Amino acid sequence: MTAAHDFPLYPHRHLLGIRGLSPADIEILLARADDAVSLSRQQDKKSSALRGRTQINLFYEASTRTQASFELAGKRLGADVMNMSVASSSVKKGETLIDTAITLNAMRPDILVIRHHSAGAAALLSQKVGCSVVNAGDGAHEHPTQALLDALTIKRAKGRLARLTVAICGDVLHSRVARSNLILLGAMGARLRIVAPSTLLPAGIREMGVEVTNSMAEGLRDADVVMMLRLQRERMAGSFVPSSREYFRYFGLDKEKLKAAKDDCLVMHPGPMNRGVEISSAVADGPQSVIQEQVEMGVAVRMAVMQALLDPRRNDEIAA
Amino acid sequence: MTAAHDFPLYPHRHLLGIRGLSPADIEILLARADDAVSLSRQQDKKSSALRGRTQINLFYEASTRTQASFELAGKRLGADVMNMSVASSSVKKGETLIDTAITLNAMRPDILVIRHHSAGAAALLSQKVGCSVVNAGDGAHEHPTQALLDALTIKRAKGRLARLTVAICGDVLHSRVARSNLILLGAMGARLRIVAPSTLLPAGIREMGVEVTNSMAEGLRDADVVMMLRLQRERMAGSFVPSSREYFRYFGLDKEKLKAAKDDCLVMHPGPMNRGVEISSAVADGPQSVIQEQVEMGVAVRMAVMQALLDPRRNDEIAA
Amino acid sequence: MTAAHDFPLYPHRHLLGIRGLSPADIEILLARADDAVSLSRQQDKKSSALRGRTQINLFYEASTRTQASFELAGKRLGADVMNMSVASSSVKKGETLIDTAITLNAMRPDILVIRHHSAGAAALLSQKVGCSVVNAGDGAHEHPTQALLDALTIKRAKGRLARLTVAICGDVLHSRVARSNLILLGAMGARLRIVAPSTLLPAGIREMGVEVTNSMAEGLRDADVVMMLRLQRERMAGSFVPSSREYFRYFGLDKEKLKAAKDDCLVMHPGPMNRGVEISSAVADGPQSVIQEQVEMGVAVRMAVMQALLDPRRNDEIAA
Repeated sequence: MTAAHDFPLYPHRHLLGIRGLSPADIEILLARADDAVSLSRQQDKKSSALRGRTQINLFYEASTRTQASFELAGKRLGADVMNMSVASSSVKKGETLIDTAITLNAMRPDILVIRHHSAGAAALLSQKVGCSVVNAGDGAHEHPTQALLDALTIKRAKGRLARLTVAICGDVLHSRVARSNLILLGAMGARLRIVAPSTLLPAGIREMGVEVTNSMAEGLRDADVVMMLRLQRERMAGSFVPSSREYFRYFGLDKEKLKAAKDDCLVMHPGPMNRGVEISSAVADGPQSVIQEQVEMGVAVRMAVMQALLDPRRNDEIAA
Repeated sequence: MTAAHDFPLYPHRHLLGIRGLSPADIEILLARADDAVSLSRQQDKKSSALRGRTQINLFYEASTRTQASFELAGKRLGADVMNMSVASSSVKKGETLIDTAITLNAMRPDILVIRHHSAGAAALLSQKVGCSVVNAGDGAHEHPTQALLDALTIKRAKGRLARLTVAICGDVLHSRVARSNLILLGAMGARLRIVAPSTLLPAGIREMGVEVTNSMAEGLRDADVVMMLRLQRERMAGSFVPSSREYFRYFGLDKEKLKAAKDDCLVMHPGPMNRGVEISSAVADGPQSVIQEQVEMGVAVRMAVMQALLDPRRNDEIAA
Repeated sequence: MTAAHDFPLYPHRHLLGIRGLSPADIEILLARADDAVSLSRQQDKKSSALRGRTQINLFYEASTRTQASFELAGKRLGADVMNMSVASSSVKKGETLIDTAITLNAMRPDILVIRHHSAGAAALLSQKVGCSVVNAGDGAHEHPTQALLDALTIKRAKGRLARLTVAICGDVLHSRVARSNLILLGAMGARLRIVAPSTLLPAGIREMGVEVTNSMAEGLRDADVVMMLRLQRERMAGSFVPSSREYFRYFGLDKEKLKAAKDDCLVMHPGPMNRGVEISSAVADGPQSVIQEQVEMGVAVRMAVMQALLDPRRNDEIAA
């Protein structure tokens, strides 16, 4: 790996969202992450970059892959990692998010990774604690490390982000993944398209400077990248979608619909997938799919983010 | 940190309660803990004092803060820490506490931290296993590390424990925190007062040599320290308390009631707090509150206890 | 401990079952495990054999002892260990085992330990991932590390496996423990007997070359080892067994029934025990019981297996 001091100093203390990051900020994180990929591919996957640092993962929503990714990232960097799964904790005794955060903060962590069902939870928390906060998903607001790992995956495959045509398809309304991706890819100069049924479109999306359509054929035409979004189970039986079968027919990505895109169009999905709902197995497991690469890049991005936030050049020792 | 051999050898193998500890024992633990505070305040929070040692946290009751505190303490000392959350384990298959403990003991841990709903569980376990046992709360019996962290917090703020007037207020009947604190602070020469409704007073408390009142005004008069206890939710709807609103009116600590105490009286709470039930937010977050310091001291105390119990000078290698 | 290069290279990449292992393979694992016992008996129980390696424990069934055993084994060898408890994870969102495994595999673990309720799950998974897979129990199929730890326990007590008479008693029908033990002990030349009520006998068991009886007196006659199996609670109330009291009367191991065996017959149980159902407390805690030794050998066997599978002489670096 490249020595830490060879990267520019990252200017922020927290990663609360992509909103507010400059293209230069994003470039620092992507460069660090690109460098971090190699560590996990070695037999000896252990660095001491965060040795002696404490990372707490505070997850108010269950998430196999995101929590695992942050946990492995921290452990491989040598940090002491502690998981707080809220479902089985005394937080259920009625303690507020803020009291829990202040309590954990008093234990002197260096970094607090939080997933919460309320938009703004990570930002609120960052005002109350003395350590760095990473937003691992807050309601329908943002999921910045997902957008970064998606960007890294695209950049490694295509060499750039600018001027690529990226179609984001599905439940954009409820998706923090879509939101963070739209901000990041927009900032980096990609051409953005949204494909969604009108019931799953956020209000004001047309004003964000993206093309909007409810036709997969139209949205995927000559696309360089197609990002499928997960359709939450609770939406399938609700008023948003007639049925998962109908949804797949119109908005599920299969080989036929994919033909509208460029021949080398990347197929992406943040996982976990509903096979046969938003994506067919043939496409998910097909040659254009980079879904596994996304997962691999996820670990690298989280390593990069935590190293950037805890850059030892900051020398911000916690005072007594 | 001070070198381990600069502390007197701690004479006990287990920490089952405060009962049975001499003032000298308590002083050793407080001195070690005071020294341990600095480690968690450094950027590099890692020591190798317990490297190669195995710590198992066996929690039969969920507890965010206590389990997290023990886990971080062990990890920062370099121990291998394993959490056994019983709610999600095969212990639910009906295995007894003793069989579980004997099984874990066969895996050769150095220290077993146990929280259990039955008074005496930790002591019972200590007779069955070959490793050190730390009681992290057993029923309404004891919670020794809580009393130690409370004592450390007071001592660092006030310079001493002897001759301080400490008022412990609330559900004393069900509180192992109160019990361990009464024993420790009594042994160290503090003047103790209990403030509680008569339904929440343990039988025989008046014989323990403490002042007992059901008037906050009386109990807090000229106090140096006021410790509020958590009112368990199940008590609020029960026959112990008319309602949480009524409880707050008579026994909840607010600015008005706090005026009876000394101007520099410390406000303490073991957490998690029921804001507006046993304590008002203005007081909990106010200038006299040391509630966050308590949490910080908790990590230091647990580090101190585990180092004292596993003092390498004992050389008690586990025999084959 | 013996240096790793002093053991023959283990020829398999996965441990999916005992079926398919040669006696020489089994001997390598037992020799390595015998050597590993000493590490856990030292004060410093930490080796760096698997430093930099990532171990993921993916448990679809709760198991205190097996998961704990794998976790401690990995941590003592210096690996980064991550537990995925499926009950509290997004796997419940409907993701398939294979998608979960492929996702975890993309995070570049070195070893995946899986317990699953379906026979064949571990083998299926081994075809989909790039890392080593260890079967920690799959349905009623196999539980190879249990058979290995049982064999190690016997061998250390008796000096050999060949020509010993081993009686396996109880719910053989549903027991992967019995199955793996029958294969291993058979391969190593032990004489095998099954004692079970006819409702708990697998079809075709008589063709496996073992003696079958429903009389404990007959099955235990002159036995060197008696292995009791756990009677699952759901079986007690079902059509397999009239009642747990009746079951104990005919098939539970007590002092009286044990007299039929040799005086130095070992008493074994994989745990967790139902005292008074398949075994009496007097026997479980008696002088012939090696039940705690089994647990201790479990950690050693899992260390041995993971070291054998990740032998650095293989030099199978994960390619980009």
